[in-house]
Amino acid sequence: MERERAFVVKIGGKVINDPVALESFLGDFARIEGKKILVHGGGNLLETFSEKLGIRQTMIDGRRVTDAETLELALMVYAGAISKRIVAGLQKYGCNAAGFSGADMNLVRASKRKPGAHDFGFVGDVEPSSVNAEALGGLLNENITPVFCAVTHDGEGQLLNTNADSLAYVLACALAPAYDVQLHYCFERRGVMRDVNDPDSILPTITGEAYRRMLEENSISGGMLPKLDTAFSAIRNGVGAVVIGHAGELVNAINKKENAGTYLVA
Amino acid sequence: MERERAFVVKIGGKVINDPVALESFLGDFARIEGKKILVHGGGNLLETFSEKLGIRQTMIDGRRVTDAETLELALMVYAGAISKRIVAGLQKYGCNAAGFSGADMNLVRASKRKPGAHDFGFVGDVEPSSVNAEALGGLLNENITPVFCAVTHDGEGQLLNTNADSLAYVLACALAPAYDVQLHYCFERRGVMRDVNDPDSILPTITGEAYRRMLEENSISGGMLPKLDTAFSAIRNGVGAVVIGHAGELVNAINKKENAGTYLVA
Repeated sequence: MERERAFVVKIGGKVINDPVALESFLGDFARIEGKKILVHGGGNLLETFSEKLGIRQTMIDGRRVTDAETLELALMVYAGAISKRIVAGLQKYGCNAAGFSGADMNLVRASKRKPGAHDFGFVGDVEPSSVNAEALGGLLNENITPVFCAVTHDGEGQLLNTNADSLAYVLACALAPAYDVQLHYCFERRGVMRDVNDPDSILPTITGEAYRRMLEENSISGGMLPKLDTAFSAIRNGVGAVVIGHAGELVNAINKKENAGTYLVA
Repeated sequence: MERERAFVVKIGGKVINDPVALESFLGDFARIEGKKILVHGGGNLLETFSEKLGIRQTMIDGRRVTDAETLELALMVYAGAISKRIVAGLQKYGCNAAGFSGADMNLVRASKRKPGAHDFGFVGDVEPSSVNAEALGGLLNENITPVFCAVTHDGEGQLLNTNADSLAYVLACALAPAYDVQLHYCFERRGVMRDVNDPDSILPTITGEAYRRMLEENSISGGMLPKLDTAFSAIRNGVGAVVIGHAGELVNAINKKENAGTYLVA
Protein backbone atom coordinates (compact mmCIF):
# COMPACT_ATOMS: atom_id res chain seq x y z
CA MET A 1 0.00 0.00 0.00
CA GLU A 2 1.35 3.42 -0.88
CA ARG A 3 1.86 5.47 2.25
CA GLU A 4 0.86 9.12 2.53
CA ARG A 5 3.72 11.58 2.04
CA ALA A 6 4.94 13.83 4.83
CA PHE A 7 7.49 16.63 4.54
CA VAL A 8 9.84 17.78 7.26
CA VAL A 9 11.47 21.05 6.21
CA LYS A 10 14.29 22.70 8.10
CA ILE A 11 14.80 26.39 7.32
CA GLY A 12 17.95 28.01 8.59
CA GLY A 13 20.72 30.38 7.77
CA LYS A 14 20.35 33.91 6.51
CA VAL A 15 16.79 33.42 5.21
CA ILE A 16 15.53 33.79 8.78
CA ASN A 17 16.94 37.33 8.96
CA ASP A 18 15.67 38.45 5.56
CA PRO A 19 11.96 39.40 5.77
CA VAL A 20 11.46 39.31 1.98
CA ALA A 21 13.16 35.92 1.47
CA LEU A 22 11.37 34.49 4.52
CA GLU A 23 7.96 35.69 3.31
CA SER A 24 8.57 34.11 -0.08
CA PHE A 25 9.70 30.87 1.53
CA LEU A 26 6.64 30.75 3.79
CA GLY A 27 4.38 31.20 0.76
CA ASP A 28 6.10 28.25 -0.93
CA PHE A 29 5.94 26.12 2.19
CA ALA A 30 2.24 26.91 2.72
CA ARG A 31 1.48 25.60 -0.78
CA ILE A 32 2.99 22.14 -0.14
CA GLU A 33 0.11 19.70 -0.24
CA GLY A 34 -0.16 17.09 2.46
CA LYS A 35 1.27 16.66 5.94
CA LYS A 36 4.20 18.89 6.75
CA ILE A 37 6.37 20.12 9.60
CA LEU A 38 8.63 23.18 9.64
CA VAL A 39 11.73 23.35 11.84
CA HIS A 40 13.47 26.71 12.03
CA GLY A 41 16.88 27.88 13.12
CA GLY A 42 17.60 31.22 14.67
CA GLY A 43 19.43 33.13 11.96
CA ASN A 44 21.71 35.56 13.76
CA LEU A 45 19.04 37.13 15.96
CA LEU A 46 20.47 35.52 19.09
CA GLU A 47 23.88 37.03 18.34
CA THR A 48 22.28 40.43 17.70
CA PHE A 49 20.45 40.45 21.04
CA SER A 50 23.29 38.93 23.06
CA GLU A 51 25.52 41.73 21.78
CA LYS A 52 22.92 44.40 22.59
CA LEU A 53 22.40 42.94 26.08
CA GLY A 54 26.09 42.33 26.70
CA ILE A 55 25.64 38.58 27.22
CA ARG A 56 28.98 37.06 26.31
CA GLN A 57 28.76 34.06 23.97
CA THR A 58 31.28 31.27 24.48
CA MET A 59 31.97 28.98 21.53
CA ILE A 60 33.88 25.68 21.73
CA ASP A 61 34.85 24.12 18.39
CA GLY A 62 32.27 26.32 16.69
CA ARG A 63 29.50 25.22 19.03
CA ARG A 64 27.71 27.56 21.40
CA VAL A 65 27.82 27.13 25.17
CA THR A 66 24.30 27.66 26.52
CA ASP A 67 24.50 29.20 29.97
CA ALA A 68 21.35 30.28 31.85
CA GLU A 69 21.27 33.76 30.30
CA THR A 70 21.82 32.40 26.79
CA LEU A 71 19.05 29.84 27.30
CA GLU A 72 16.67 32.63 28.32
CA LEU A 73 17.64 34.53 25.19
CA ALA A 74 17.21 31.40 23.05
CA LEU A 75 13.67 31.00 24.40
CA MET A 76 12.95 34.65 23.65
CA VAL A 77 14.37 34.63 20.14
CA TYR A 78 13.56 31.11 18.89
CA ALA A 79 10.32 30.23 20.73
CA GLY A 80 9.07 33.82 20.83
CA ALA A 81 9.99 36.24 18.06
CA ILE A 82 10.89 33.89 15.21
CA SER A 83 8.33 31.15 15.91
CA LYS A 84 5.36 33.49 16.18
CA ARG A 85 6.35 35.53 13.11
CA ILE A 86 6.55 32.32 11.08
CA VAL A 87 3.22 31.07 12.43
CA ALA A 88 1.43 34.36 11.71
CA GLY A 89 3.00 34.41 8.24
CA LEU A 90 1.81 30.87 7.46
CA GLN A 91 -1.69 31.59 8.79
CA LYS A 92 -1.85 34.51 6.37
CA TYR A 93 -1.33 31.99 3.54
CA GLY A 94 -4.07 29.71 4.89
CA CYS A 95 -1.68 27.17 6.40
CA ASN A 96 -2.95 26.12 9.85
CA ALA A 97 0.39 26.44 11.64
CA ALA A 98 1.08 26.19 15.36
CA GLY A 99 4.44 26.93 16.99
CA PHE A 100 5.89 24.36 19.37
CA SER A 101 8.96 23.69 21.45
CA GLY A 102 9.67 20.16 22.57
CA ALA A 103 8.09 21.00 25.94
CA ASP A 104 4.69 21.74 24.43
CA MET A 105 2.54 18.60 24.61
CA ASN A 106 5.79 16.90 25.63
CA LEU A 107 6.51 16.58 21.91
CA VAL A 108 10.30 16.16 22.18
CA ARG A 109 12.04 15.18 25.38
CA ALA A 110 15.83 15.52 25.29
CA SER A 111 18.73 14.49 27.52
CA LYS A 112 20.91 17.26 28.86
CA ARG A 113 24.34 16.71 27.35
CA LYS A 114 26.70 15.35 30.02
CA PRO A 115 29.79 17.48 30.54
CA GLY A 116 32.75 15.67 28.99
CA ALA A 117 35.92 17.42 27.90
CA HIS A 118 33.66 20.51 27.63
CA ASP A 119 30.44 21.57 29.35
CA PHE A 120 28.03 22.97 26.77
CA GLY A 121 25.52 23.94 29.46
CA PHE A 122 21.78 23.72 28.84
CA VAL A 123 22.03 21.72 25.63
CA GLY A 124 19.71 18.82 24.91
CA ASP A 125 20.59 15.88 22.70
CA VAL A 126 17.83 14.08 20.85
CA GLU A 127 17.38 10.78 19.08
CA PRO A 128 14.40 9.39 17.16
CA SER A 129 12.92 7.88 20.33
CA SER A 130 12.87 11.37 21.93
CA VAL A 131 9.83 12.26 19.84
CA ASN A 132 6.28 11.76 21.11
CA ALA A 133 5.19 10.25 17.79
CA GLU A 134 1.60 9.73 18.92
CA ALA A 135 1.06 13.41 19.83
CA LEU A 136 2.86 14.52 16.65
CA GLY A 137 0.73 12.19 14.51
CA GLY A 138 -2.39 13.53 16.23
CA LEU A 139 -1.51 17.08 15.18
CA LEU A 140 -0.91 16.02 11.57
CA ASN A 141 -4.22 14.13 11.55
CA GLU A 142 -5.93 17.37 12.55
CA ASN A 143 -4.24 19.05 9.57
CA ILE A 144 -2.22 21.24 11.88
CA THR A 145 1.22 22.20 10.58
CA PRO A 146 3.67 22.10 13.51
CA VAL A 147 6.37 24.78 13.47
CA PHE A 148 9.23 23.74 15.73
CA CYS A 149 11.88 25.93 17.28
CA ALA A 150 14.97 24.04 18.39
CA VAL A 151 14.15 24.10 22.10
CA THR A 152 13.34 20.89 23.97
CA HIS A 153 12.89 19.90 27.61
CA ASP A 154 13.97 17.13 29.97
CA GLY A 155 10.50 16.50 31.44
CA GLU A 156 11.73 17.75 34.83
CA GLY A 157 11.06 21.39 34.13
CA GLN A 158 14.37 22.19 32.41
CA LEU A 159 14.27 23.65 28.90
CA LEU A 160 17.22 22.80 26.65
CA ASN A 161 18.76 24.35 23.57
CA THR A 162 18.97 21.79 20.76
CA ASN A 163 20.55 21.63 17.32
CA ALA A 164 17.86 22.45 14.75
CA ASP A 165 19.27 20.04 12.12
CA SER A 166 19.17 17.23 14.67
CA LEU A 167 15.62 18.12 15.69
CA ALA A 168 14.45 17.99 12.06
CA TYR A 169 16.19 14.62 11.71
CA VAL A 170 14.52 13.01 14.75
CA LEU A 171 11.09 14.37 13.76
CA ALA A 172 11.51 12.88 10.27
CA CYS A 173 12.62 9.52 11.71
CA ALA A 174 9.65 9.45 14.11
CA LEU A 175 7.22 9.87 11.20
CA ALA A 176 8.93 7.25 9.01
CA PRO A 177 6.96 4.22 10.31
CA ALA A 178 3.65 5.87 9.34
CA TYR A 179 4.52 8.11 6.39
CA ASP A 180 6.65 8.29 3.27
CA VAL A 181 8.88 11.07 4.62
CA GLN A 182 10.97 13.61 2.74
CA LEU A 183 13.41 15.67 4.79
CA HIS A 184 14.50 19.00 3.29
CA TYR A 185 17.37 21.07 4.65
CA CYS A 186 16.94 24.57 3.22
CA PHE A 187 19.43 27.40 3.53
CA GLU A 188 21.17 29.93 1.30
CA ARG A 189 23.37 27.48 -0.66
CA ARG A 190 22.26 25.53 -3.70
CA GLY A 191 23.35 22.13 -2.37
CA VAL A 192 26.44 20.14 -1.53
CA MET A 193 29.42 21.26 -3.58
CA ARG A 194 32.03 18.83 -4.88
CA ASP A 195 34.56 21.65 -4.65
CA VAL A 196 33.88 24.14 -1.84
CA ASN A 197 35.52 26.89 -3.92
CA ASP A 198 33.33 26.28 -6.97
CA PRO A 199 29.67 27.22 -6.50
CA ASP A 200 28.86 25.49 -9.80
CA SER A 201 30.04 22.12 -8.53
CA ILE A 202 26.73 21.21 -6.86
CA LEU A 203 26.29 17.46 -6.67
CA PRO A 204 22.84 16.48 -7.98
CA THR A 205 22.81 13.19 -6.03
CA ILE A 206 24.84 11.47 -3.34
CA THR A 207 24.25 7.79 -2.69
CA GLY A 208 25.19 6.07 0.53
CA GLU A 209 28.10 4.39 -1.25
CA ALA A 210 29.34 7.65 -2.75
CA TYR A 211 29.15 9.20 0.70
CA ARG A 212 31.31 6.44 2.22
CA ARG A 213 33.83 6.99 -0.59
CA MET A 214 33.83 10.76 0.03
CA LEU A 215 34.42 10.11 3.73
CA GLU A 216 37.38 7.84 2.93
CA GLU A 217 38.80 10.42 0.53
CA ASN A 218 38.26 13.10 3.20
CA SER A 219 36.68 15.26 0.47
CA ILE A 220 33.80 16.78 2.45
CA SER A 221 34.16 20.30 3.80
CA GLY A 222 33.93 20.55 7.58
CA GLY A 223 30.73 22.58 7.73
CA MET A 224 28.80 20.08 5.62
CA LEU A 225 29.97 16.94 7.43
CA PRO A 226 27.46 16.91 10.33
CA LYS A 227 24.58 17.75 7.95
CA LEU A 228 25.45 14.85 5.65
CA ASP A 229 25.98 12.49 8.57
CA THR A 230 22.55 13.38 9.95
CA ALA A 231 21.00 13.04 6.50
CA PHE A 232 22.32 9.52 5.97
CA SER A 233 21.26 8.54 9.50
CA ALA A 234 17.74 9.66 8.53
CA ILE A 235 17.82 7.42 5.47
CA ARG A 236 19.02 4.47 7.54
CA ASN A 237 16.06 5.15 9.87
CA GLY A 238 13.49 4.87 7.07
CA VAL A 239 13.25 8.45 5.75
CA GLY A 240 12.63 8.15 2.00
CA ALA A 241 14.81 10.99 0.77
CA VAL A 242 16.79 13.92 2.07
CA VAL A 243 17.40 17.06 0.00
CA ILE A 244 19.93 19.78 0.85
CA GLY A 245 19.38 22.98 -1.09
CA HIS A 246 18.42 26.63 -1.40
CA ALA A 247 15.31 27.87 0.41
CA GLY A 248 14.05 29.35 -2.87
CA GLU A 249 14.15 25.92 -4.55
CA LEU A 250 11.96 24.04 -2.06
CA VAL A 251 9.02 23.56 -4.42
CA ASN A 252 11.31 22.46 -7.25
CA ALA A 253 13.11 20.08 -4.91
CA ILE A 254 9.82 18.47 -3.87
CA ASN A 255 8.90 18.10 -7.54
CA LYS A 256 12.32 16.54 -8.19
CA LYS A 257 13.32 19.17 -10.72
CA GLU A 258 16.95 19.22 -11.84
CA ASN A 259 19.37 21.62 -10.14
CA ALA A 260 17.04 22.11 -7.18
CA GLY A 261 19.52 20.81 -4.63
CA THR A 262 21.49 17.72 -3.67
CA TYR A 263 19.38 14.55 -3.32
CA LEU A 264 20.66 12.02 -0.82
CA VAL A 265 19.42 8.51 -1.39
CA ALA A 266 20.13 5.05 0.01
CA MET B 1 -27.98 17.71 31.99
CA GLU B 2 -25.05 18.81 34.10
CA ARG B 3 -22.30 20.23 31.92
CA GLU B 4 -18.64 19.45 32.41
CA ARG B 5 -16.68 22.11 34.29
CA ALA B 6 -13.90 24.10 32.65
CA PHE B 7 -11.54 26.53 34.33
CA VAL B 8 -9.96 29.58 32.73
CA VAL B 9 -7.25 30.92 35.02
CA LYS B 10 -5.45 34.20 34.44
CA ILE B 11 -2.16 34.57 36.29
CA GLY B 12 -0.58 37.99 36.37
CA GLY B 13 1.23 40.49 38.50
CA LYS B 14 4.36 39.86 40.52
CA VAL B 15 3.89 36.06 40.69
CA ILE B 16 5.27 35.85 37.13
CA ASN B 17 8.59 37.34 38.31
CA ASP B 18 8.91 35.20 41.43
CA PRO B 19 10.24 31.72 40.54
CA VAL B 20 9.24 30.20 43.91
CA ALA B 21 5.70 31.61 43.90
CA LEU B 22 5.27 30.69 40.23
CA GLU B 23 6.43 27.11 40.80
CA SER B 24 3.99 26.72 43.68
CA PHE B 25 1.18 28.19 41.58
CA LEU B 26 1.93 25.85 38.66
CA GLY B 27 1.82 22.86 41.01
CA ASP B 28 -1.62 23.98 42.22
CA PHE B 29 -2.86 24.64 38.70
CA ALA B 30 -1.61 21.24 37.48
CA ARG B 31 -3.69 19.54 40.17
CA ILE B 32 -7.00 21.07 39.03
CA GLU B 33 -9.10 18.21 37.71
CA GLY B 34 -10.90 18.66 34.43
CA LYS B 35 -10.55 20.94 31.45
CA LYS B 36 -8.48 24.05 32.05
CA ILE B 37 -6.76 26.94 30.32
CA LEU B 38 -4.04 29.19 31.69
CA VAL B 39 -3.61 32.78 30.49
CA HIS B 40 -0.51 34.59 31.68
CA GLY B 41 0.56 38.18 31.86
CA GLY B 42 4.12 39.39 31.52
CA GLY B 43 5.08 40.46 35.01
CA ASN B 44 7.65 43.20 34.59
CA LEU B 45 10.00 41.27 32.30
CA LEU B 46 9.11 43.45 29.31
CA GLU B 47 10.04 46.56 31.31
CA THR B 48 13.30 44.94 32.42
CA PHE B 49 14.36 44.09 28.86
CA SER B 50 13.14 47.33 27.29
CA GLU B 51 15.29 49.19 29.81
CA LYS B 52 18.32 46.99 29.12
CA LEU B 53 17.85 47.39 25.37
CA GLY B 54 17.06 51.10 25.57
CA ILE B 55 13.64 50.73 23.95
CA ARG B 56 11.63 53.67 25.24
CA GLN B 57 8.16 52.75 26.51
CA THR B 58 5.36 55.23 25.94
CA MET B 59 2.33 55.04 28.23
CA ILE B 60 -0.97 56.84 27.63
CA ASP B 61 -3.44 56.83 30.55
CA GLY B 62 -1.50 53.93 32.07
CA ARG B 63 -1.70 51.88 28.89
CA ARG B 64 1.34 50.88 26.87
CA VAL B 65 1.88 52.01 23.29
CA THR B 66 3.07 48.98 21.29
CA ASP B 67 5.43 50.16 18.57
CA ALA B 68 7.26 47.67 16.31
CA GLU B 69 10.21 47.25 18.68
CA THR B 70 7.96 46.79 21.70
CA LEU B 71 5.89 44.20 19.81
CA GLU B 72 9.06 42.26 19.01
CA LEU B 73 9.99 42.39 22.68
CA ALA B 74 6.47 41.31 23.71
CA LEU B 75 6.79 38.26 21.43
CA MET B 76 10.16 37.45 22.95
CA VAL B 77 9.10 37.84 26.56
CA TYR B 78 5.48 36.66 26.55
CA ALA B 79 5.42 34.01 23.78
CA GLY B 80 9.01 32.92 24.33
CA ALA B 81 10.54 33.11 27.79
CA ILE B 82 7.46 33.15 30.04
CA SER B 83 5.27 30.82 27.98
CA LYS B 84 7.87 28.08 27.62
CA ARG B 85 8.95 28.24 31.25
CA ILE B 86 5.33 27.81 32.33
CA VAL B 87 4.79 24.94 29.86
CA ALA B 88 7.94 23.10 30.97
CA GLY B 89 6.94 23.68 34.61
CA LEU B 90 3.46 22.22 34.06
CA GLN B 91 4.82 19.24 32.12
CA LYS B 92 7.02 18.49 35.12
CA TYR B 93 3.83 18.15 37.18
CA GLY B 94 2.26 15.85 34.61
CA CYS B 95 -0.04 18.49 33.12
CA ASN B 96 -0.04 18.19 29.33
CA ALA B 97 0.40 21.89 28.61
CA ALA B 98 1.06 23.57 25.26
CA GLY B 99 1.86 27.27 24.82
CA PHE B 100 -0.14 29.25 22.29
CA SER B 101 -0.55 32.74 20.97
CA GLY B 102 -3.73 33.66 19.14
CA ALA B 103 -1.91 33.09 15.84
CA ASP B 104 -1.24 29.41 16.58
CA MET B 105 -4.02 27.32 15.01
CA ASN B 106 -5.70 30.70 14.42
CA LEU B 107 -7.04 30.36 17.96
CA VAL B 108 -7.73 34.06 18.57
CA ARG B 109 -8.02 36.60 15.78
CA ALA B 110 -8.08 40.22 16.94
CA SER B 111 -8.78 43.59 15.33
CA LYS B 112 -5.99 46.13 15.42
CA ARG B 113 -7.24 49.01 17.54
CA LYS B 114 -8.10 51.96 15.29
CA PRO B 115 -6.20 55.11 16.21
CA GLY B 116 -8.64 57.50 17.89
CA ALA B 117 -7.51 60.29 20.18
CA HIS B 118 -4.43 58.10 20.72
CA ASP B 119 -2.65 55.52 18.59
CA PHE B 120 -1.73 52.53 20.72
CA GLY B 121 0.14 50.88 17.84
CA PHE B 122 0.13 47.10 17.41
CA VAL B 123 -2.62 46.42 19.91
CA GLY B 124 -5.38 43.93 19.19
CA ASP B 125 -8.88 44.09 20.68
CA VAL B 126 -10.80 40.88 21.18
CA GLU B 127 -14.39 39.89 21.80
CA PRO B 128 -15.93 36.46 22.44
CA SER B 129 -16.43 35.87 18.70
CA SER B 130 -12.65 36.35 18.15
CA VAL B 131 -12.04 32.88 19.56
CA ASN B 132 -11.86 29.79 17.33
CA ALA B 133 -14.05 27.81 19.73
CA GLU B 134 -13.91 24.67 17.61
CA ALA B 135 -10.10 24.48 17.64
CA LEU B 136 -10.01 25.36 21.35
CA GLY B 137 -12.60 22.67 22.15
CA GLY B 138 -10.57 20.18 20.12
CA LEU B 139 -7.51 20.81 22.29
CA LEU B 140 -9.51 20.37 25.51
CA ASN B 141 -11.02 17.14 24.14
CA GLU B 142 -7.48 15.84 23.66
CA ASN B 143 -6.79 16.69 27.32
CA ILE B 144 -4.28 19.33 26.29
CA THR B 145 -4.03 22.31 28.64
CA PRO B 146 -3.60 25.45 26.53
CA VAL B 147 -1.31 28.10 28.00
CA PHE B 148 -1.99 31.45 26.35
CA CYS B 149 0.24 34.47 26.20
CA ALA B 150 -1.59 37.68 25.43
CA VAL B 151 -0.50 37.94 21.80
CA THR B 152 -3.02 37.59 18.99
CA HIS B 153 -3.01 38.14 15.22
CA ASP B 154 -5.17 39.75 12.56
CA GLY B 155 -5.06 36.80 10.13
CA GLU B 156 -3.11 38.93 7.63
CA GLY B 157 0.29 38.20 9.12
CA GLN B 158 0.29 40.91 11.78
CA LEU B 159 0.81 39.90 15.40
CA LEU B 160 -0.89 42.08 18.02
CA ASN B 161 -0.33 42.79 21.70
CA THR B 162 -3.52 42.13 23.66
CA ASN B 163 -4.71 42.71 27.22
CA ALA B 164 -4.34 39.45 29.13
CA ASP B 165 -7.45 40.02 31.27
CA SER B 166 -9.50 40.56 28.11
CA LEU B 167 -8.03 37.45 26.49
CA ALA B 168 -8.99 35.33 29.53
CA TYR B 169 -12.47 36.82 29.38
CA VAL B 170 -13.08 36.01 25.70
CA LEU B 171 -11.70 32.47 26.09
CA ALA B 172 -14.06 31.89 29.04
CA CYS B 173 -17.03 33.26 27.07
CA ALA B 174 -16.18 31.08 24.06
CA LEU B 175 -16.30 27.95 26.24
CA ALA B 176 -19.55 28.92 28.00
CA PRO B 177 -21.94 27.31 25.45
CA ALA B 178 -20.27 23.91 25.95
CA TYR B 179 -18.96 23.99 29.53
CA ASP B 180 -19.81 25.18 33.01
CA VAL B 181 -17.00 27.78 33.09
CA GLN B 182 -15.24 29.33 36.07
CA LEU B 183 -12.97 32.28 35.36
CA HIS B 184 -10.25 32.98 37.93
CA TYR B 185 -8.19 36.17 37.98
CA CYS B 186 -5.14 35.45 40.14
CA PHE B 187 -2.58 38.01 41.27
CA GLU B 188 -0.88 39.13 44.48
CA ARG B 189 -3.97 40.62 46.18
CA ARG B 190 -6.50 38.69 48.18
CA GLY B 191 -9.52 40.01 46.31
CA VAL B 192 -11.52 43.18 45.78
CA MET B 193 -11.25 45.51 48.76
CA ARG B 194 -14.18 47.60 49.96
CA ASP B 195 -11.64 50.16 51.17
CA VAL B 196 -8.47 50.34 49.05
CA ASN B 197 -6.50 51.40 52.16
CA ASP B 198 -7.66 48.47 54.27
CA PRO B 199 -6.28 45.07 53.14
CA ASP B 200 -8.72 43.39 55.53
CA SER B 201 -11.75 44.79 53.74
CA ILE B 202 -11.88 42.03 51.10
CA LEU B 203 -15.41 41.56 49.79
CA PRO B 204 -16.36 37.85 49.83
CA THR B 205 -19.01 38.28 47.12
CA ILE B 206 -20.18 40.94 44.69
CA THR B 207 -23.50 40.46 42.93
CA GLY B 208 -24.41 42.22 39.71
CA GLU B 209 -26.77 44.47 41.65
CA ALA B 210 -24.15 45.34 44.26
CA TYR B 211 -21.74 46.16 41.44
CA ARG B 212 -24.20 48.56 39.83
CA ARG B 213 -24.66 50.24 43.22
CA MET B 214 -20.87 50.51 43.69
CA LEU B 215 -20.60 52.08 40.23
CA GLU B 216 -23.27 54.64 41.10
CA GLU B 217 -21.55 55.40 44.40
CA ASN B 218 -18.23 55.69 42.53
CA SER B 219 -16.68 53.48 45.24
CA ILE B 220 -14.44 51.27 43.08
CA SER B 221 -10.75 52.09 42.87
CA GLY B 222 -9.51 52.91 39.37
CA GLY B 223 -7.24 49.91 38.96
CA MET B 224 -9.98 47.41 39.75
CA LEU B 225 -12.66 48.95 37.52
CA PRO B 226 -11.71 47.35 34.17
CA LYS B 227 -11.23 43.93 35.86
CA LEU B 228 -14.69 44.07 37.44
CA ASP B 229 -16.26 45.33 34.22
CA THR B 230 -14.73 42.44 32.30
CA ALA B 231 -15.77 39.98 35.02
CA PHE B 232 -19.43 41.02 34.87
CA SER B 233 -19.36 40.95 31.07
CA ALA B 234 -18.19 37.34 31.37
CA ILE B 235 -21.14 36.52 33.62
CA ARG B 236 -23.59 38.17 31.20
CA ASN B 237 -22.02 35.97 28.47
CA GLY B 238 -22.78 32.74 30.31
CA VAL B 239 -19.65 32.23 32.45
CA GLY B 240 -20.84 30.60 35.69
CA ALA B 241 -18.63 32.41 38.16
CA VAL B 242 -15.66 34.76 38.28
CA VAL B 243 -13.24 34.84 41.20
CA ILE B 244 -10.64 37.56 41.81
CA GLY B 245 -8.01 36.57 44.33
CA HIS B 246 -4.50 35.67 45.38
CA ALA B 247 -2.53 33.19 43.23
CA GLY B 248 -1.82 31.12 46.35
CA GLU B 249 -5.55 30.68 47.00
CA LEU B 250 -6.51 29.19 43.62
CA VAL B 251 -7.30 25.70 44.91
CA ASN B 252 -9.31 27.12 47.83
CA ALA B 253 -11.16 29.45 45.47
CA ILE B 254 -12.13 26.52 43.23
CA ASN B 255 -13.33 24.63 46.28
CA LYS B 256 -15.35 27.70 47.33
CA LYS B 257 -13.55 28.02 50.65
CA GLU B 258 -14.13 31.19 52.64
CA ASN B 259 -11.62 34.05 52.37
CA ALA B 260 -10.17 32.65 49.15
CA GLY B 261 -11.01 35.69 47.05
CA THR B 262 -13.93 37.75 45.84
CA TYR B 263 -16.68 35.77 44.10
CA LEU B 264 -18.59 37.63 41.43
CA VAL B 265 -22.01 36.19 40.65
CA ALA B 266 -25.05 37.19 38.59
